[in-house]
Amino acid sequence: MLPTVHGDRQPESRYACQVRASFTVLATRGAARRGRLQTPHGAVDTPAFMPVGTRAAVKGLRAEEVRATGARMILANTYHLAMRPGAERVARLGGLHRFSGWDGPILTDSGGFQVLSLAEIRSIDDDGVSFRSHLDGALLRLTPEEAVRIQEALGADVAMALDECPPGDAPREALERAMRRTTLWAKRCLAARTRADQALFGIVQGGADLALRRAHLDEIAAMPFDGFALGGLAVGEGTQAMRETVEAVAPMLPADRPRYLMGVGTPDDLSAAVAAGIDLFDCVLPTRNARNAQAFVPGGRLNLRGARFADDPDPVEEGCPCPCCTRYSRAYVRHLFGVKEMLGPILLTHHNLTFYARHMEKLRAAI
Amino acid sequence: MLPTVHGDRQPESRYACQVRASFTVLATRGAARRGRLQTPHGAVDTPAFMPVGTRAAVKGLRAEEVRATGARMILANTYHLAMRPGAERVARLGGLHRFSGWDGPILTDSGGFQVLSLAEIRSIDDDGVSFRSHLDGALLRLTPEEAVRIQEALGADVAMALDECPPGDAPREALERAMRRTTLWAKRCLAARTRADQALFGIVQGGADLALRRAHLDEIAAMPFDGFALGGLAVGEGTQAMRETVEAVAPMLPADRPRYLMGVGTPDDLSAAVAAGIDLFDCVLPTRNARNAQAFVPGGRLNLRGARFADDPDPVEEGCPCPCCTRYSRAYVRHLFGVKEMLGPILLTHHNLTFYARHMEKLRAAI
Repeated sequence: MLPTVHGDRQPESRYACQVRASFTVLATRGAARRGRLQTPHGAVDTPAFMPVGTRAAVKGLRAEEVRATGARMILANTYHLAMRPGAERVARLGGLHRFSGWDGPILTDSGGFQVLSLAEIRSIDDDGVSFRSHLDGALLRLTPEEAVRIQEALGADVAMALDECPPGDAPREALERAMRRTTLWAKRCLAARTRADQALFGIVQGGADLALRRAHLDEIAAMPFDGFALGGLAVGEGTQAMRETVEAVAPMLPADRPRYLMGVGTPDDLSAAVAAGIDLFDCVLPTRNARNAQAFVPGGRLNLRGARFADDPDPVEEGCPCPCCTRYSRAYVRHLFGVKEMLGPILLTHHNLTFYARHMEKLRAAI
Repeated sequence: MLPTVHGDRQPESRYACQVRASFTVLATRGAARRGRLQTPHGAVDTPAFMPVGTRAAVKGLRAEEVRATGARMILANTYHLAMRPGAERVARLGGLHRFSGWDGPILTDSGGFQVLSLAEIRSIDDDGVSFRSHLDGALLRLTPEEAVRIQEALGADVAMALDECPPGDAPREALERAMRRTTLWAKRCLAARTRADQALFGIVQGGADLALRRAHLDEIAAMPFDGFALGGLAVGEGTQAMRETVEAVAPMLPADRPRYLMGVGTPDDLSAAVAAGIDLFDCVLPTRNARNAQAFVPGGRLNLRGARFADDPDPVEEGCPCPCCTRYSRAYVRHLFGVKEMLGPILLTHHNLTFYARHMEKLRAAI
């Protein structure tokens, strides 16, 4: 059951229009597609990259700064938000958009991936997962119905069905069990949804095994999801296996709905996946690497801690329009990291997200 | 001797105009003055508060964001910058303005205060201070000539003479020795200066002893400094003693030159000192407290870690035009601190600096 939304602040009027996200393919080139995802909080030109705002904040950037990088849709993590500040609290405060200050489209994951990777699992069965919070050890339970309930309380534009995501080196039996469970849970998620204004995406598992992928895709794609994701990739299977899987499987996903490759990746990964027909991406790479002094630039990456930048008056990337490159030198950014000023991570987050947004813009323009 | 400035980037053309900062009193009310400090990098309406950008960055804010708070002049710390990245490096990179991206007026301290409080002192005598770097233990020496040389290399609009700043509970002999040394060093700083475009302020010591203050003021005020500072306050002597000293001494400083109260203080401290005729301030309070979840609001302070804000949909300060108050709730800011997101410190830094700038604006408007 949904928590009651109350308090001084009411959900935004736009939100009350009760129109679920819709998707239009505008152009294709080979398997690649250029499209538009229309959501209750605005449109997103695809292919698009979603910066990760784990705890309802893209680390170090205000919402309007995230928008200024060129990003139009962000991802938030259900598990982290359900732990703190709690989904009911976010709902009482008007939902994730109002809470986070990001008034554009938001996608939430189901929480399953973090439960399986961060929490201490007590039991996992066909009904759901029992686990202990990584924060205070509280015994909690995540089921498909609970994943939908929490995401409806958070109020993102797009929610994800609960899936089981096995590691990249999982044996065939583990992949098959995860597929079976993910299918069961997908049906229950669809049955549990109550919000008319929130899209729900299904997730295809099957590891890097193409026969398994095809089989699971047939099951998931037959369900009335608003979009489809490839899960269980970028989890240790290796770049080559990931790309081959995406190349083979992406074109088989329903053409009339958005295709989302979860947790990927490098700029080259994105180019390859867009060529295979993927529309949406999320990854911590640009933001996490920024905090580790690594800048994405055309043709590679720069480690701004390097001594060779100590006297370098050039911007991180010549011609980049971001707030880092238009005002600051590599020498200054290196100085900031050297003296542990948080402005260093902040500036490179601006840059890397701008780099990713421009990369996607170029990919879109080429379709 | 000044290091050679070279590299691709030349100092800004404005800087080459060789006009030192000048000061005009525009209005007075009692002992309070409203004025304008004109510098090679623009004008500052006084009384003004300078945010502290210790390592050529106001922690967490980009230069244009600092400007957006209403701040017009910032302070940078010579000791920290001389350690890393080094004054010669800053000079090679075009000076502090170009390096930091802050193109408005900058004041640098002499480095003396940090040497005496952070470094391991080996010896201090009338010639200068020998100390070990708090970073790598290197044996270094700071003299009046070296303080001027470093500050000229950094290239701030206003440099400070090297002084000896005794603690707030120093006995009379220590105060007198510091005064004598500060006077000696003041003369040597004036003799050492070579830049025509950099103002140099002298510093009055004397603790909270009014007779000593008057005596030292007579010595320092007789020298051709471009402005005068009250040093040795807000160093543990207590608010009452500090305010009484400022009230008695500020009006005796030369009326035609700017008066700077170093390291002060709370909004109430600023109001009291402005009433006594002070024109310039710097303090880490708004920025440091922001990083500790403390927000300045009319009539007091809020600790945003407090549980009472967990469901509070109101902004930190109703009506405040800062990027924190116009978009985010107290509940969100509390959440950010609870989950250690750097956006929490960032948002409250925006708010506190905006609060300070608005406070100064109100004080100016009342004169």
